[in-house]
Amino acid sequence: MSEFALIDTIRALTTLARGDVGLGIGDDAALLELPPGQQLVACTDTLVEGVHFLRGTAPADLGWKALAVNLSDLAAMGATPAWALLALTLPAAGRDFVQGFAEGYAALARQHGVALVGGDTTQGSLTITLTTLGGVPAGTALTRSGARVGDVVCVTGTLGGAAGALRCLQARAEAPAPLLQRLHRPVPRIEAGLALRARASACIDVSDGLVADLGHICAASGVAAQLDADALPLAPELTSLFDAESCRELALAGGDDYELCFTVAPERVAASLAALADAGCVATPIGRIVDGAGVSVHDHAGHGLAIAHAGWEHFAP
Amino acid sequence: MSEFALIDTIRALTTLARGDVGLGIGDDAALLELPPGQQLVACTDTLVEGVHFLRGTAPADLGWKALAVNLSDLAAMGATPAWALLALTLPAAGRDFVQGFAEGYAALARQHGVALVGGDTTQGSLTITLTTLGGVPAGTALTRSGARVGDVVCVTGTLGGAAGALRCLQARAEAPAPLLQRLHRPVPRIEAGLALRARASACIDVSDGLVADLGHICAASGVAAQLDADALPLAPELTSLFDAESCRELALAGGDDYELCFTVAPERVAASLAALADAGCVATPIGRIVDGAGVSVHDHAGHGLAIAHAGWEHFAP
Repeated sequence: MSEFALIDTIRALTTLARGDVGLGIGDDAALLELPPGQQLVACTDTLVEGVHFLRGTAPADLGWKALAVNLSDLAAMGATPAWALLALTLPAAGRDFVQGFAEGYAALARQHGVALVGGDTTQGSLTITLTTLGGVPAGTALTRSGARVGDVVCVTGTLGGAAGALRCLQARAEAPAPLLQRLHRPVPRIEAGLALRARASACIDVSDGLVADLGHICAASGVAAQLDADALPLAPELTSLFDAESCRELALAGGDDYELCFTVAPERVAASLAALADAGCVATPIGRIVDGAGVSVHDHAGHGLAIAHAGWEHFAP
Repeated sequence: MSEFALIDTIRALTTLARGDVGLGIGDDAALLELPPGQQLVACTDTLVEGVHFLRGTAPADLGWKALAVNLSDLAAMGATPAWALLALTLPAAGRDFVQGFAEGYAALARQHGVALVGGDTTQGSLTITLTTLGGVPAGTALTRSGARVGDVVCVTGTLGGAAGALRCLQARAEAPAPLLQRLHRPVPRIEAGLALRARASACIDVSDGLVADLGHICAASGVAAQLDADALPLAPELTSLFDAESCRELALAGGDDYELCFTVAPERVAASLAALADAGCVATPIGRIVDGAGVSVHDHAGHGLAIAHAGWEHFAP
C-alpha cells in the first residue's frame, strides 16, 4: 500500500461532511470556520505502542482510543469537538491495519460529528498523534484553576476499570468484557462537559490517575483536596477480581479512565448532578477542596491512607 | 529529567506572549481567539528519526525544522501563523536534547510570533509531530486547485540545496555550509505566501520534490505542467559539487526545499514577482500550465527529459 493509497483509504472511511470545513484533507492545510463568539479549543495527544497500549491491540481499538483520549481533553474544557488532524506513524502500511484503524476512529468520530481535516502519514515505530479542535462560547470554558476552598470534588462514571483490565492482560489473564471495553473503547464525556459549563468551578479528565489529575486542579487553583476512599465509584467488575486495597489503588492511581473530575460549590452540587443525569451521566461526590496543597485520601473513619502510586508519568525516575 | 521538568523546560524556553491566547500550556486544552473574518488554517507534520532526519542531527536543528516544515504548509496557503502544539516522543528525557530542541524551535517561533500553546510528551522512538494553526482572511487562501491552462509556473528561491547536502552527508563527505543550512534550517516562505494572496492561482510548498508537488497542483486543478529544465534556479553551491544531470535531478526531485511553487496568470506574473521582491524573495518562472495531466520536463531545445525519481513517498513499493 503506497502512502497515497493509505491516505485515500483513511479519507474514504472517515468522510464526514461539516459545513464549517472550507477545505479538508488534500491541500497543504485545512481551512476551517469557527462560529462567531466562540473560542477555539485545541489539544494534542500521542499514543505510543508499548507505552500507551500493548503490542497486538486491535487497530480499530487504537483508532477509537486515539480520538477518545483527545476528545476527553475537549470534554474537560466543556468544549464541543469539531475537527481533527491525524499524524500516523507506522512501520509498514498494511491494508488491514489502516482499514481497521480508520474504522475504529470513524465509529467514534461519527458519534460526535468530528471531521478529519488533515494529517501526515510517515514510516517509523507505531506512534499515533491526534490533534482535535473544537469550540466553546467565549469565556465559558472549564479550566483547572477555579477550585475554591469548600467546593465538593466529584467524578463522573466509575474508576479503575481500564487499569483493572490492563492488569489482567499484563498477567496474561482474561479480563471481563466490560473492563476491556473501558480500556479499549473509552467514552469521552463530551455531553457531561457541556452540562458542567457555568456549574463546575474546575474540571480535568482522569487520564494519568485520579490523584495525579486532581493534583493538577489543586496546583492550578492553589488549594488542596481531601478524598473519601470509601466514596470512590469503582467499576462494578473490579471488586470480583481484586481485593479492596487493589481496587482502591486502581481507582486512585490506575488512570486511563477518561472520566471527568470536577469541583463545584456546595450549593450547586445538586443542580450539577441533575444536569449530568439529564446528559445521561452519573457523577459521585468523592471529597472536598480545603486549604493547603496536594491531594490526601482518607477512609470513612478519617484515617489517612498512603497513596502507593500517584499516577502515570513519562520519564519518571 | 521528569516529564513535568521536561515540559517546564520547553515552556520556559518557548514563552511568547500573544493577546489571542486565552489559555496556553498547562490545562487540558488551549483556548484561542481567532480574529473575526478569518478562517482558521490548520496543518500537522511529523519528523521521524532515520526517515526525515539522520540520527545525530543537532537537537536545535530538529526544533527549528519541525516548526519550519509546518510553517511552510501555512505559507503555501497564504496564512499568517499564530499557534503551535508539539507532540514530542523521546527515548529518554535528556536535558541537553530538550534544551537544544526548545531553543532551536523558539528561534524560529520568535521570528514569526508563533506561541506554543499545548502538546504532549511521551516516551518512545524519536518522533516529532507539530501542529500549527494560523489565520487567513476568509476566502483569500491559496490552494492547489486553481491552476489554469496558460498560467506560468514559478518557484521561489533555489532548489536542490537541502537534497545536495543530504547526499553529501550520506556519502560521509563534507557539505558546504550554505547547503547544510538549507537542510537543517529551512526558511518557511511566510511573507512570500502573504504576497501571493490574490495574485497566484495555485500554490504548494516543495517538500517532497518539485515534480511531485507540482503534480499535486496539476491533479487538484485538472491540468498538466511543462517545466523548462534549464530555467530551474539551482542552489548556487550545487553546481560545484555535482554534474549537470545530478543537479537537475536534485532540483526536480530532491525535496526538502520548502520553497513555494505557484502558478499565476501571464498578465499577473510581473506584479507577482515584484510583490515577492518587496517581500525579500526572488522567484523564477520555470514552466507553463497546459492541457492534460502530470508534469513533464523539457530542455531549452524542447527535448523531453525522463524524470528518474518523482519525489519522496512513504511506503513506496
